[in-house]
Amino acid sequence: MRTRAAVAVEAGKPLEIMDVNLEGPRAGEVLVEVRATGICHTDDFTLSGADPEGLFPAILGHEGAGVVVEVGAGVTSLKPGDHVIPLYTPECRECDYCLNPKTNLCQAIRTTQGAGKMPDGTSRFSTLDGDEILHYMGCSTFSNHTVLPEIALAKVREDAPFDKICYIGCGVTTGIGAVINTAKVEIGSRCVVFGLGGIGLNVIQGLRLAGADQIVGVDINPGKKEMAERFGMTDFVNPTEVEGDLVPYLVNLTKGGADYSFDATGNVKVMRQALECAHKGWGESIIIGVAPAGAEISTRPFQLVTGRSWRGTAFGGARGRTDVPRIVDWYMEGKIEIDPMITHTMPLSDINTGFELMHSGESIRSVVLY
Amino acid sequence: MRTRAAVAVEAGKPLEIMDVNLEGPRAGEVLVEVRATGICHTDDFTLSGADPEGLFPAILGHEGAGVVVEVGAGVTSLKPGDHVIPLYTPECRECDYCLNPKTNLCQAIRTTQGAGKMPDGTSRFSTLDGDEILHYMGCSTFSNHTVLPEIALAKVREDAPFDKICYIGCGVTTGIGAVINTAKVEIGSRCVVFGLGGIGLNVIQGLRLAGADQIVGVDINPGKKEMAERFGMTDFVNPTEVEGDLVPYLVNLTKGGADYSFDATGNVKVMRQALECAHKGWGESIIIGVAPAGAEISTRPFQLVTGRSWRGTAFGGARGRTDVPRIVDWYMEGKIEIDPMITHTMPLSDINTGFELMHSGESIRSVVLY
Repeated sequence: MRTRAAVAVEAGKPLEIMDVNLEGPRAGEVLVEVRATGICHTDDFTLSGADPEGLFPAILGHEGAGVVVEVGAGVTSLKPGDHVIPLYTPECRECDYCLNPKTNLCQAIRTTQGAGKMPDGTSRFSTLDGDEILHYMGCSTFSNHTVLPEIALAKVREDAPFDKICYIGCGVTTGIGAVINTAKVEIGSRCVVFGLGGIGLNVIQGLRLAGADQIVGVDINPGKKEMAERFGMTDFVNPTEVEGDLVPYLVNLTKGGADYSFDATGNVKVMRQALECAHKGWGESIIIGVAPAGAEISTRPFQLVTGRSWRGTAFGGARGRTDVPRIVDWYMEGKIEIDPMITHTMPLSDINTGFELMHSGESIRSVVLY
Repeated sequence: MRTRAAVAVEAGKPLEIMDVNLEGPRAGEVLVEVRATGICHTDDFTLSGADPEGLFPAILGHEGAGVVVEVGAGVTSLKPGDHVIPLYTPECRECDYCLNPKTNLCQAIRTTQGAGKMPDGTSRFSTLDGDEILHYMGCSTFSNHTVLPEIALAKVREDAPFDKICYIGCGVTTGIGAVINTAKVEIGSRCVVFGLGGIGLNVIQGLRLAGADQIVGVDINPGKKEMAERFGMTDFVNPTEVEGDLVPYLVNLTKGGADYSFDATGNVKVMRQALECAHKGWGESIIIGVAPAGAEISTRPFQLVTGRSWRGTAFGGARGRTDVPRIVDWYMEGKIEIDPMITHTMPLSDINTGFELMHSGESIRSVVLY
């Protein structure tokens, strides 16, 4: 079939909107009509060329929601008409990782996914001239139709709006999951969140959900304060306005340090501050942000020996097929908010505008509506 | 009273054996006759001058065992004749740290202890000329008699031999505790231990106690192999004999990476290897060793984002008054071994020989018998 897609032709260039060929689903695969997709920093990271593992030409996009159109042989858990959210971290429920309760990093299709292919090692996308176009993060939601493995689709309720729940495909789950799956924040905790963008705001509402007593947000952009407060932030700190070092300031503000701190900036210097503002004896710092290639975190080992833990999270520690439908329920039940974070919507033809809004800091999340 | 002590007169000089004055115990304090004391790398670190917080003149030593001689006003948990192990990490059972089950870092007397004083801010030791001599780590077990706060003494059974259980005051508890308190290693785990000295061997026997399936020991000294095997090591790796990088070698040897890895070297480069050989998704790496002043650990944040945790431990996460008596019991019941690790004993007059044996790598532990 033919479908309409925004193609990343090469690094550093705007996406090109074009018709592409899409092969139907093979065994274990599912054809999905994408109804909405968010534009995430990770797409931008790859498109910019900064991602050393980025491959081109490819169809980016990994934060979508849509409807099953057709299923390949052997697919049992989905049928045409089902509403789904694509999962860049799949959940096969059979590999050593899925069977270990300590991780969500299903490895079933890791190699082919990383190579921009479906599990059989080929791509379903091609140009009208027949040249291969690669998949991206196993999702490629910047195409109106896409093919995914069955294990990379979360089936969700049908009354949930695509233009909002697409955000659960990455940002919402990553932020909330970092709190509830990775950190397992306890009621009454004092927490610090670095970076009040699309992920940081979701960390904040995750902390509110978890019953944190203090939720400190740190951002150099004072324009982020109002929205963060809406999501539960109790204290705003603008590092450019702090006299002296930020770390002791935060330790003092949290009466000894954060029980849990979260980096949602991707800046390795900030990651260090996040660790070091954690409470002596028991503070845990969770890295969510993706750092530039080659960047390294560092600290004195004394910080760890005196009881701080340094950890990370991918996709919020969520097992997508199991956890994403629950988060959709939470949204529909009003336990979490998404609507205010979707600041811009646009048709696929304007997708490059979405990237520009991200760069300028104007948007929290732009969503493409098909 | 007068007692005999080895005094660290200044950094970088051998200890001087001399008679010193010791004031009796004030309120909340206890006079202890030290019967045996181990010589630990931390004593050496301070004596060398490398410890930026080292103070002189002081009476070092923090790994002892002895008998209560006299108790000060208000002391209720100890009486003359009780057998005790001094605790450089006290357990007041009242501070915010003691009341938080996530940490063992009692802060009750931290400031004065760090300053070489008793909790009231003064020292009990002085030269025969009346010049102040400082305490060390709140213990000063390189003196035949010493004074400690009640909260810094673990009462232990009276049939346990001082010349062995003194080692429980630091090395044994640090190594075993890192496994059972900090890492909470599960039965069947695959683990890697870097550094097969006095701490590393105790990590290894802790892992045996915890039912680990694979216990890999890493040391550049092949002479460490035999003893480590005796304590439960299943695989020995000499990095100088590994072709190519050590980390992938260890990942392969442990069939995907260590569930838990432990650094007992204090070398920040080794700490990084320990983290990076931990299993993707769930591997935890525990820093035990004390690094040189100013040294920093570093890694790519990707290592954490893909599920590894970087942690540390002090005194093996043990709450001394509660846990040390249990470890003494384990020794007496044959659940753990100590005897083979005490490779040398000597009178106080030969204590500098103990430091030399440590430097040359000949000893695992030297113990001074009073």
